[in-house]
Amino acid sequence: MATSNRPDRFREECGVFGIYDHEHAARLTFLGLYALQHRGQESAGIVSSDGRQMSYVRGMGYVSDIFDEECFARLPGRMAIGHVRYSTAGEVSLREAQPFLVDYHSGQMALCHNGNFPNAQAVRSELEKEGSIFQSTSDTEIVLHLMARVQATDVVEALVQAVGRMEGAYSILFATPEIMVAARDPRGFRPLSIGVLNGSYVVASESCAFDLIGACFLRDILPGEVVVFSADGMKSLRPFAPQPIKQCIFEHVYFSRPDSVVFGQPVSLSRQMLGRFLARNAPADADVIVPVPDSGVAAAIGYSLESGIPFCFGLVRNHYVGRTFIEPKASIRHFRVKVKLNPVRQLLEGKRVVLVDDSIVRGTTSQEIVQMVRAAGAAEVLFRVSCPPTISPCYYGVDTPNREELIAYRLSIDQIRDFIGADSLGYLSRDALLEACADPGDQHFCTSCYTGEYPTPIGPESRFRCRVPTEMAGINLK
Amino acid sequence: MATSNRPDRFREECGVFGIYDHEHAARLTFLGLYALQHRGQESAGIVSSDGRQMSYVRGMGYVSDIFDEECFARLPGRMAIGHVRYSTAGEVSLREAQPFLVDYHSGQMALCHNGNFPNAQAVRSELEKEGSIFQSTSDTEIVLHLMARVQATDVVEALVQAVGRMEGAYSILFATPEIMVAARDPRGFRPLSIGVLNGSYVVASESCAFDLIGACFLRDILPGEVVVFSADGMKSLRPFAPQPIKQCIFEHVYFSRPDSVVFGQPVSLSRQMLGRFLARNAPADADVIVPVPDSGVAAAIGYSLESGIPFCFGLVRNHYVGRTFIEPKASIRHFRVKVKLNPVRQLLEGKRVVLVDDSIVRGTTSQEIVQMVRAAGAAEVLFRVSCPPTISPCYYGVDTPNREELIAYRLSIDQIRDFIGADSLGYLSRDALLEACADPGDQHFCTSCYTGEYPTPIGPESRFRCRVPTEMAGINLK
Amino acid sequence: MATSNRPDRFREECGVFGIYDHEHAARLTFLGLYALQHRGQESAGIVSSDGRQMSYVRGMGYVSDIFDEECFARLPGRMAIGHVRYSTAGEVSLREAQPFLVDYHSGQMALCHNGNFPNAQAVRSELEKEGSIFQSTSDTEIVLHLMARVQATDVVEALVQAVGRMEGAYSILFATPEIMVAARDPRGFRPLSIGVLNGSYVVASESCAFDLIGACFLRDILPGEVVVFSADGMKSLRPFAPQPIKQCIFEHVYFSRPDSVVFGQPVSLSRQMLGRFLARNAPADADVIVPVPDSGVAAAIGYSLESGIPFCFGLVRNHYVGRTFIEPKASIRHFRVKVKLNPVRQLLEGKRVVLVDDSIVRGTTSQEIVQMVRAAGAAEVLFRVSCPPTISPCYYGVDTPNREELIAYRLSIDQIRDFIGADSLGYLSRDALLEACADPGDQHFCTSCYTGEYPTPIGPESRFRCRVPTEMAGINLK
Amino acid sequence: MATSNRPDRFREECGVFGIYDHEHAARLTFLGLYALQHRGQESAGIVSSDGRQMSYVRGMGYVSDIFDEECFARLPGRMAIGHVRYSTAGEVSLREAQPFLVDYHSGQMALCHNGNFPNAQAVRSELEKEGSIFQSTSDTEIVLHLMARVQATDVVEALVQAVGRMEGAYSILFATPEIMVAARDPRGFRPLSIGVLNGSYVVASESCAFDLIGACFLRDILPGEVVVFSADGMKSLRPFAPQPIKQCIFEHVYFSRPDSVVFGQPVSLSRQMLGRFLARNAPADADVIVPVPDSGVAAAIGYSLESGIPFCFGLVRNHYVGRTFIEPKASIRHFRVKVKLNPVRQLLEGKRVVLVDDSIVRGTTSQEIVQMVRAAGAAEVLFRVSCPPTISPCYYGVDTPNREELIAYRLSIDQIRDFIGADSLGYLSRDALLEACADPGDQHFCTSCYTGEYPTPIGPESRFRCRVPTEMAGINLK
Repeated sequence: MATSNRPDRFREECGVFGIYDHEHAARLTFLGLYALQHRGQESAGIVSSDGRQMSYVRGMGYVSDIFDEECFARLPGRMAIGHVRYSTAGEVSLREAQPFLVDYHSGQMALCHNGNFPNAQAVRSELEKEGSIFQSTSDTEIVLHLMARVQATDVVEALVQAVGRMEGAYSILFATPEIMVAARDPRGFRPLSIGVLNGSYVVASESCAFDLIGACFLRDILPGEVVVFSADGMKSLRPFAPQPIKQCIFEHVYFSRPDSVVFGQPVSLSRQMLGRFLARNAPADADVIVPVPDSGVAAAIGYSLESGIPFCFGLVRNHYVGRTFIEPKASIRHFRVKVKLNPVRQLLEGKRVVLVDDSIVRGTTSQEIVQMVRAAGAAEVLFRVSCPPTISPCYYGVDTPNREELIAYRLSIDQIRDFIGADSLGYLSRDALLEACADPGDQHFCTSCYTGEYPTPIGPESRFRCRVPTEMAGINLK
Repeated sequence: MATSNRPDRFREECGVFGIYDHEHAARLTFLGLYALQHRGQESAGIVSSDGRQMSYVRGMGYVSDIFDEECFARLPGRMAIGHVRYSTAGEVSLREAQPFLVDYHSGQMALCHNGNFPNAQAVRSELEKEGSIFQSTSDTEIVLHLMARVQATDVVEALVQAVGRMEGAYSILFATPEIMVAARDPRGFRPLSIGVLNGSYVVASESCAFDLIGACFLRDILPGEVVVFSADGMKSLRPFAPQPIKQCIFEHVYFSRPDSVVFGQPVSLSRQMLGRFLARNAPADADVIVPVPDSGVAAAIGYSLESGIPFCFGLVRNHYVGRTFIEPKASIRHFRVKVKLNPVRQLLEGKRVVLVDDSIVRGTTSQEIVQMVRAAGAAEVLFRVSCPPTISPCYYGVDTPNREELIAYRLSIDQIRDFIGADSLGYLSRDALLEACADPGDQHFCTSCYTGEYPTPIGPESRFRCRVPTEMAGINLK
Repeated sequence: MATSNRPDRFREECGVFGIYDHEHAARLTFLGLYALQHRGQESAGIVSSDGRQMSYVRGMGYVSDIFDEECFARLPGRMAIGHVRYSTAGEVSLREAQPFLVDYHSGQMALCHNGNFPNAQAVRSELEKEGSIFQSTSDTEIVLHLMARVQATDVVEALVQAVGRMEGAYSILFATPEIMVAARDPRGFRPLSIGVLNGSYVVASESCAFDLIGACFLRDILPGEVVVFSADGMKSLRPFAPQPIKQCIFEHVYFSRPDSVVFGQPVSLSRQMLGRFLARNAPADADVIVPVPDSGVAAAIGYSLESGIPFCFGLVRNHYVGRTFIEPKASIRHFRVKVKLNPVRQLLEGKRVVLVDDSIVRGTTSQEIVQMVRAAGAAEVLFRVSCPPTISPCYYGVDTPNREELIAYRLSIDQIRDFIGADSLGYLSRDALLEACADPGDQHFCTSCYTGEYPTPIGPESRFRCRVPTEMAGINLK
Repeated sequence: MATSNRPDRFREECGVFGIYDHEHAARLTFLGLYALQHRGQESAGIVSSDGRQMSYVRGMGYVSDIFDEECFARLPGRMAIGHVRYSTAGEVSLREAQPFLVDYHSGQMALCHNGNFPNAQAVRSELEKEGSIFQSTSDTEIVLHLMARVQATDVVEALVQAVGRMEGAYSILFATPEIMVAARDPRGFRPLSIGVLNGSYVVASESCAFDLIGACFLRDILPGEVVVFSADGMKSLRPFAPQPIKQCIFEHVYFSRPDSVVFGQPVSLSRQMLGRFLARNAPADADVIVPVPDSGVAAAIGYSLESGIPFCFGLVRNHYVGRTFIEPKASIRHFRVKVKLNPVRQLLEGKRVVLVDDSIVRGTTSQEIVQMVRAAGAAEVLFRVSCPPTISPCYYGVDTPNREELIAYRLSIDQIRDFIGADSLGYLSRDALLEACADPGDQHFCTSCYTGEYPTPIGPESRFRCRVPTEMAGINLK
């Protein structure tokens, strides 16, 4: 029997991609989503428009498993928006898959978003009091209900009013049969960029999606900006009151692909700098730098470059891990970690090993890795983390455990070191993190998961809600 | 390539089944739906309640293909309602599958229904003006929106008010986590019956569902009656103004299973009487009575009994026909009919054959069958139809073509005879139809498809809407 | 959990279809197999030849589920042979699916057959001793091994020598890249006919396959005849020593489709005659004749015609039964039978009912049906069987239980009557059976299942072997 | 439409795993195969034995997609052998999946192997002449035929005689219901090792399989050794005439996982040494060392360590690539490479880049990568290959193109440099390769793909045969 286990990692909610006025709109959206697959692997969808009518295809699983020629035949037109999402298994949650496509008083509208609203539950309750019915648990559905109810002169105004009611994080793609709208919340939590492909506009969560389809990066959508793509071209609005910018620094630490430029800075560079600064913050007297693959690789290279200690792949990752995994009846030591990682004894034996990872969540996985490396003969295991201790959950679109499950909330650094069994443990300081992300003045980033101080009001019910129901998940090892 | 073709038949929209307070609620609902499979083969769903929380499973295809042990594990509790539906193919229309389960201000509610509302489009537009968004094309969603918006003291009152806004046909099953409600519209278009299984109440579109699970038939739900099943037992309400009863006579002609008792009368008997009266209305000087299987079998037996002309299966039906069928590249005469029916030359050759069917829709299938029987050597082909000419579409839950596609709307009986190529053509008279259904006084049945006179207002937009999109269907030969 | 249950029926092993020199060879073979689907529903396969190379596609399940456009693209060429088979579930038995396609010293050859060899085990052991390895349990593989080993001047000669080593029943289709060969064993146990379609030859187990594709029936292949289709046209050989003809009479009693002409006689007529003679052999003082659908229908009509007692469908069959069926946890009386059949109380209540079926195997199903009919109010249940008591298993291609499981082997007719709970029980006599099948002189049929006298030697190991492993089957209700 | 494309890589044929006398034999075999998944991703199979009877499950695709709880229920017993294979798509090639399980004169036997026999075609023809039929194109089937035909006192002797007839490469696992046998050809082309798990013996192609299940590496099976595992424990035989050892050096260059110890040497070390020696053989005046992921990573790290030039991931690999990929209708530059790799402009722009890969096959992929890196702004692209030029195909188990397709066979190094568009091109020398693999005396390795000199006779038909039929493959981007 597949047993239950939530991954001991943080997980992004989603990624979005849209294209306006291109002959192969749905196909290119498919490719864009494919490039954004790391932002969500459980479901995906595309809505296209032929100018009068919108169509959609959604499915569970990988982008490349959902879409085939038959799908594209069902997605005609020169405009398309798409979405990748992580979510629960089975038909139950197909209805959570985005984009949502609904009918309302002015016709069809479609919406997908990357982010999370801490006040979603409150707004939803209000809407229910006014007679709304909900067919999903998604925040996206709330925005659509709001849009259908606001008094507005046009659909863009309706969108502005609707998202204006929401607190929190959103990078949104919205469409009617005629227009596409991209919007980013005033604090700019989540990334969203504009590109150009042979005169057609494209919008994507990360610039790596532009690279795949051969589009040029144009610029980021600004925090609080609403960009309308229509027959009149691209139009920019700034309808919201300005707010301090609070871009998610964890995009640089972990989420975004290294070949993306996020919030104006290449991730490949920021991530290497995290490693370099980590080497300064938490130096180590060691023989070898070993990343926890794949998340720790870039920082480990930075650490190695800065420290001069050689880098090597002392842990080998198995890339054929399935979604869930039949656990052996035979008890096998460290099985859950072993199925994904195998230590290379020859590279570790007798060595003082610096293990570099991008975070410690509950500590259980780190503990298993440390034990495994030690069992492979390491003389010392010096654990280094390329960000500060995570002490508080995210309310802006990252799937984090409850505060109580975060080891750094419960324990001191020394206690964590003892728990995971390392000989030493070092984190990157918040100042160094900001500097690595080119923001030494602390002007642009949300670091609330490291500080517990949130830029928006957080109520008792504002926790991120659509969790993987543990009873349905297997050993998910992604 | 599978080619496109809507079946040349009338089709029922759906069937419902519910059970209150039984240990195996979801399993028995599965069996009930299985017995009602003839009322809808494209999708099915079950919502169960454990008293606090409702769960659902829906899927495309046959009941026995959708539900397995894993499904039942996801459907705990002692109450369940279920639905079978015909609908379009693919994920697109999974969202049309019923029951609908939504959140609203008072918690969860679930609804499924058999029927159709001629004023649905008007109500939907009003709701959209008030800010509702629609995620399906189903009338059922309209009722849920209405319920969420009405001012009512309790949920049953809300249901009454909501369906009170709708004109037309409904046999509804509704549930909250605590109660189950069954309701039938004041004219009683669609059947709905109550049964008892070891002290638990069950509700089903047709009594054959009771037989399978070993329940006893208790009584029909009355036109306009609302029956509430709760911890207090069964309670009957009659909240609606009385209306003339207008039960769908086509349930007896074609839809219901012969082993059901529908509108108080055994279908096996009414259907045999249709054949007997047909033999009187339209006698034939012939050698053999041959049904068009399976729809014409019961009437053909009645015709044979009345006329004394021997009955035989001169057309053999292939029961292994798939949902869609790869058409051969080689051109084959009468392929579409042949894939389903094969004439038995030895039974037809040189014979004067009475072909009995339950209806002629567009006439094209009847034409092919007549040609095929003639090609098999029949000396004469005398076509007999066990109901009057269908001249007008149904607005109350039967999928009929547009008026212009109905051959009997366009052509006289002689012209139809010529079109289908029969030597003679006879229909059952409306009076005989009513008498066969035990209503010689014309008190209880809707016969608007034969008369064009409708018991409710019919606007320009009131046509049954969720048609099979022709571009998606293969040769559907069921 | 799906529970285990072998169907309480006899089951045919398979059907074959081939076509030589037609533009749409694979497609037409698909259609031919589709028409023969009643002869085997568990697996199917097609081998085609483009004149130089043979290709194949095989799969589990219905013909219409296995073959799609992509398959036809993989089956090029103007010649094809195909096969439907009943078999076990899962990948394990895909290797049993036919046709077999192998390489041997002279290139490729393909073979499929309908029948069974009582001496298969002995020949197989011999071959193993000579160094053959077997990858399936199929008799077909034995023939291929023999062919590869015989000394022969050409491939037809090799085929003749190979099947000449086998005792028993076979209707074979064989192919090399260039030629197609059809052969029938000297006793002619299984049917095999030749048709013509626009100048191309077709071969099929039953003539109904010709009807679907619009081919004309040409003639039966004779017992012991080998027919070679090649660039030189059709050539007939009679290489085997003549034997008494022993055509399987059960093809007329049950297996063949009523629209086929089998062994020169229309099944529709023979089957009606079975009913007529049954009415003479075992008359009944009754009110109504009710068939056990679908197997008893034709004989019941004959019984009704002969006796003048009205025929009616007092048992309604559910045609949506899936392959296996989740059994309810709630115990339901007669569930296994009810899932397939429902009695119509209004037609049975107070009536003296003649139940007509085509056989009683173990007696358990008949017992349940009798009880069900009685519970539906029948005053008397008079059971009639349209063949003699089955006292001995078949070794020639019909899947029968062991002798000990056959109720008529163990019990007298009176005891069987008591076991199944009928008020009376009547069988057709063997003489009447032969006469109904137009062989009053007992010249042409194998009736060993009714007599226990076999036309070939039967050893201890000669029982039909590839049984459905009970541990893998669900409630198979077909 | 998915377009056709064979991967421009060398590919291993397979991997094997077996376990003798363990409670969870099939499950552990599943895990072993999972760890060996990199050796073959197209099909997999397991045969288990309960001591009397052997069972099997085979399927197409990844190990973790094929095996589930139901499979393990079908694989009882304390012994199991398994196999991963690369092969063609569809049911057609399921019959090529291993292990093979057959019946022969002495009962059941099962076999799987990693390797290739240059004389297979000749032996197969001989066997066919003697009457053998072949149901697959696999060399494995040949060995089974031989075994069934040899005169031998016992099954081990039969196996020895059978494989003694074959020339070439094999690492074999063989089983009867009672015993398991592992054998390696006298030249030892392919790896095969023994491990121990709590007293049970395990055998695997690579030691990484031991690590996953917690087994200890015991020793390699020696070239020419036959090891029998039975109730009497482990027994070693050396039945073959000794031959010069010819272990496949490409296992170190590319195939084996870096965490395996292959031919006695840790791959992690040899592969780093390849990079170090490459830096000496073909130094570069450059700014950055960039691997072609994932194959070039280890050598690139070695190159970086030796040269002191920083290492970075200037090409990012997308790990979500599906098996085949819908190509966009929009033409996209370098699409085939881009779908897998994306250059990181910020790391490459203005840099003199050393690109390190483990081989150049046809040169087309290398050409695209060079162009892509140059388009990302690289000032110079200096291509380095961690082995000598591949000038000749492999006949011992590696899927290589024909000689004519190998760019290094057709062109000089300068011409290759021009073809791929690099500023310089350097290969590792054969001497350095041997030294990196700890064999400076050239005693232990087959390097025929670099020299064209083969250790066994190679006839005209001896090429590796079971190629991916190009017409069935999509863009396979693994």
